[in-house]
Amino acid sequence: MTSSETAPPPSAAPVVILVGTQMAENVGAAMRAMANFGLRRLRLVDPREPFPNDKAIAMASGSDAILDPVETFPTLEAALSGLNTVFATTARAHDIAKPVVSPATAAPLLRAAIDRGEAVGLVFGRERNGLTSDEVGLADAILTIPIDPAFPSLNLGQAVLTVAYEWRKVVIGDTAWTPFPEKERSPLASKDDVLGFFGHLETALDTVEFFRPPEKRGSMVRNLRSIFQKARLTEQEVRSLRGVLSALERRPTRPTAARHAHRNVEPKGGEGGDEG
Amino acid sequence: MTSSETAPPPSAAPVVILVGTQMAENVGAAMRAMANFGLRRLRLVDPREPFPNDKAIAMASGSDAILDPVETFPTLEAALSGLNTVFATTARAHDIAKPVVSPATAAPLLRAAIDRGEAVGLVFGRERNGLTSDEVGLADAILTIPIDPAFPSLNLGQAVLTVAYEWRKVVIGDTAWTPFPEKERSPLASKDDVLGFFGHLETALDTVEFFRPPEKRGSMVRNLRSIFQKARLTEQEVRSLRGVLSALERRPTRPTAARHAHRNVEPKGGEGGDEG
Repeated sequence: MTSSETAPPPSAAPVVILVGTQMAENVGAAMRAMANFGLRRLRLVDPREPFPNDKAIAMASGSDAILDPVETFPTLEAALSGLNTVFATTARAHDIAKPVVSPATAAPLLRAAIDRGEAVGLVFGRERNGLTSDEVGLADAILTIPIDPAFPSLNLGQAVLTVAYEWRKVVIGDTAWTPFPEKERSPLASKDDVLGFFGHLETALDTVEFFRPPEKRGSMVRNLRSIFQKARLTEQEVRSLRGVLSALERRPTRPTAARHAHRNVEPKGGEGGDEG
Repeated sequence: MTSSETAPPPSAAPVVILVGTQMAENVGAAMRAMANFGLRRLRLVDPREPFPNDKAIAMASGSDAILDPVETFPTLEAALSGLNTVFATTARAHDIAKPVVSPATAAPLLRAAIDRGEAVGLVFGRERNGLTSDEVGLADAILTIPIDPAFPSLNLGQAVLTVAYEWRKVVIGDTAWTPFPEKERSPLASKDDVLGFFGHLETALDTVEFFRPPEKRGSMVRNLRSIFQKARLTEQEVRSLRGVLSALERRPTRPTAARHAHRNVEPKGGEGGDEG
């Protein structure tokens, strides 16, 4: 299930702004992360290695073909052109009184802003030093990632990924959504079929005197049944298990009498798995 | 706010298992992502470039020092040693009937398993080909990332990051948590102070005959007040604004009569901002 009918088009998704990137590879990694999660517009502020750049394109792994053309600006102020609402991503506190939000909190706020018709930007700072306080001061809110304080050094591409991923979840509108569904299971076995299998199994085990001492039979049967009930057997799986059981019953070391004992509890359809 | 008192120790976090990695850099990127979000145990299955490896250590950016020693196994079966519950991450459907879950769905399930005392593993496949169906068959569930079908090529390190990030959010127990708090704001201004400022402003504007035509004064005042009410002014900000206003009132081009007009609406404390 997706809410794609009501989701904003990718052109209305947040613009990503990378300030003062030092390594072109990180620009490429950010591009790939953006493309993975539905972001299309990238602006660079004064990158140390100009874009386009071979190292960036190699790391982008083809995502440059689906992003809008990357734009470069001399300052963050210039790169904010046309935007209404801007969140600055920082790893450390700045002495600035602004709302501080996690990616999971930010994503629905960004979505709501876009739904109101605002143009939204996400600003990320330099690999080593992040954003200056003046740059953070240009934003409406501070976005920070709930990283483990034991190892707080988050790669730029991975910071972009984390925020883009939360954006994507909000666009999808269902945190349980998966890009492919569970394989359609064959229908669950009816209780008749399951009880038919239990009868087959227990008759076969009675034949080989498995339940010893006899007074333990009741609890032993309950424990065995429990194993197969936890598996939530399908019709096909019951047929397979009956085939397995029939095959084992034909083992030459067992009395041949056991071979037909289960006929009493044959399931309605008369199928015996792979036997015959 | 964190639930760290009740969180499982890092030693009880999921084990990450990377199967058949082709590039050592991707092992290093996965290590860094694990360390960022509180995972500590990495197992490699038949990596093409053996570990330890200089390229992996460079990409790990120091995270190798806080992870447990990385272990290498010849097969996935061997790497599952000691684990009870295993999720396999795949980007494409396999013809296997198993639960298919998103990272957001998986994380609380993994946490619940660990809280029950189970040892949990997260399996990731080869960069190019992912996991074989036999390898997926060893898992209890399939984990898949809600990637944009328009660009579904997710880097291995970023796949690990996405799953580790959701794990971290469950450990923290509060999706709104941030590693540093909002800067403590100075106390919000009382309505007395805000109304005192409005009186100051409106008296100053009356003096310069700003409100024209006079019959529009009511709506013009309401609109101006609305600007400052949206800002949720602090006590300090009201003082600053009164200082700004007083400074402007002293402009030599204005009649000097305006200079003391606001004295009538001086706030209780008698503070005039930075003036004097």
